[in-house]
Amino acid sequence: MAERAPWITYRPELKVLDCTVRDGGLINAHQFSDEFVTAAYRACVAAGIDYMEIGYKNSKKVFPKSNYGAWRHCDEEDLRRVVGDHTAEATGLKLAVMADAGKSDWKTELLPAADSVLDMVRVAFYAHQVSEAVDMIHHAHSLGYETTANLMAVSSITETEIDTVLEAIAPTPATTMVIVDSFGYLYREQIDRLYHKYKAALASGGKEIGIHAHNNLQLAFANTIEAIILGCNRVDSTIFGLGRGAGNCHTELLLGFLRNPKFDVRPIIEVIQHHMMALRQEIEWGPLVPYNITGQLNQHPRSAIEWRAGATPDDFLTFYDRVVAEI
Amino acid sequence: MAERAPWITYRPELKVLDCTVRDGGLINAHQFSDEFVTAAYRACVAAGIDYMEIGYKNSKKVFPKSNYGAWRHCDEEDLRRVVGDHTAEATGLKLAVMADAGKSDWKTELLPAADSVLDMVRVAFYAHQVSEAVDMIHHAHSLGYETTANLMAVSSITETEIDTVLEAIAPTPATTMVIVDSFGYLYREQIDRLYHKYKAALASGGKEIGIHAHNNLQLAFANTIEAIILGCNRVDSTIFGLGRGAGNCHTELLLGFLRNPKFDVRPIIEVIQHHMMALRQEIEWGPLVPYNITGQLNQHPRSAIEWRAGATPDDFLTFYDRVVAEI
Repeated sequence: MAERAPWITYRPELKVLDCTVRDGGLINAHQFSDEFVTAAYRACVAAGIDYMEIGYKNSKKVFPKSNYGAWRHCDEEDLRRVVGDHTAEATGLKLAVMADAGKSDWKTELLPAADSVLDMVRVAFYAHQVSEAVDMIHHAHSLGYETTANLMAVSSITETEIDTVLEAIAPTPATTMVIVDSFGYLYREQIDRLYHKYKAALASGGKEIGIHAHNNLQLAFANTIEAIILGCNRVDSTIFGLGRGAGNCHTELLLGFLRNPKFDVRPIIEVIQHHMMALRQEIEWGPLVPYNITGQLNQHPRSAIEWRAGATPDDFLTFYDRVVAEI
Repeated sequence: MAERAPWITYRPELKVLDCTVRDGGLINAHQFSDEFVTAAYRACVAAGIDYMEIGYKNSKKVFPKSNYGAWRHCDEEDLRRVVGDHTAEATGLKLAVMADAGKSDWKTELLPAADSVLDMVRVAFYAHQVSEAVDMIHHAHSLGYETTANLMAVSSITETEIDTVLEAIAPTPATTMVIVDSFGYLYREQIDRLYHKYKAALASGGKEIGIHAHNNLQLAFANTIEAIILGCNRVDSTIFGLGRGAGNCHTELLLGFLRNPKFDVRPIIEVIQHHMMALRQEIEWGPLVPYNITGQLNQHPRSAIEWRAGATPDDFLTFYDRVVAEI
């Protein structure tokens, strides 16, 4: 008997989170127009996306309103200006925000979930911030939010540190722990090991594993597929890959790959055509050579972003020599 | 005991073939300047590349010299104008050409290998041309060339057709059979199945399996990595992904991934900076939305190439609707 063709079936429990506005906002200090965010929101609803991460819930002291757009703080009135009296029941879409450990006034800035259009708070943290992250998860959960734990830059810490984080997250009410490849460094065999490590540590609590991939090595979509094959049921992407530096897994590629008939790629293509093409003329993102170089070296893309904003952005060779000399 | 980290070791028998000039030439009728081809050649030598596919050995009747550049035919005097009295012994680089079944005057146009700077002839064919391909392989082998069998568009034929091709190729002197994803449609689980099918059919004859991936879904590099993990020891790529439509697996990504210290990505970055950036201003390639769409549908990218050359190249929505309506 022939082996089954898994690529024409689907898992109903696999859910897509579009973080175009949240992650993409890192390239323009979240200074998106309401028109842009409205278009992204409507496209997510029409495309059958499960979660839209509409911004950060971050500190106005660290990120003053004079310098950052509304989607860095996601005040309730700003959210409602775009999504109205949104409900997940009416739209099929849940709204999420991300709160960073160390950068969020989470004790005072989160409304009770019943008073907000938001359904989920994703807690982003570095390994050394795991204790604050645990407190944040408990706090957001007590307010009625679904919560997730997003350990960032996992490729830059030791296995022992990862294990300690997993032990701390396991007993929390977070529904999901996300594999976050901040530097776009990982390839499939490394995704495999992390997935199995996360799963082993968290399976008994019933947590889902998520994937958040960056495209420094043109592997964001491939690593997302790999995580899905292994069993990840929470998957991040952005429209046209919008995101800082090399960008993210493209929502339009992901939806084109998934076989759940509830997903429709057409509204995403519409947003690309009507909004992303113009934005791409103003702001650069994507897997350009300097991001290839930092990705291959497991480095934060900061130096590559600065190089692209500098006087000789296409002098890849000088950038390469400098980065290699400094490691 | 901890599992070994395969990503810091390497297989000495893994060989890279750069087909920048051959495959890339499909976007400009092989009208490259001698300066460009010389730069690519020198970069391949300096980077430790194993094979450089410098063009096609195709028919001057089908592709007249008035319309096509020298690299469509690879006459010996044209080759020597660029590579001089090249030898693999002196440079570490072997030179290859591709001959298409049905489009090559292979009975008359191939010199004996001893009289040529070429070392290898890669035979490209569709499934229905396998009998001619077998004759071509025997003929080139009898002239002293290493030969390979490149079954194109493997995603568009039946498993039974693939099996029949493998049976025909198995007894030939071809050293390698290449998995060719012409439409950029395959993802990792499909690569896995093809690899195991090819390997099972050809292993007893000692043939190597190769991979030639296209980037329609941003999966060319990932699928190449996958094939390497499985055991592929012959790997195709092009500098900066140069190639028709969505392009190919990028040589600079591949060399950055491989850990054999003989490889050096720096000369490739140099060619990108000094030659590819200017070419990219003149000619378009890469995984743009129309190629995403044809890739997802397992279609030849022809319609997407025509759309990008037409009056409304950024009207992705109309292209999408048209393609969906026609399937």
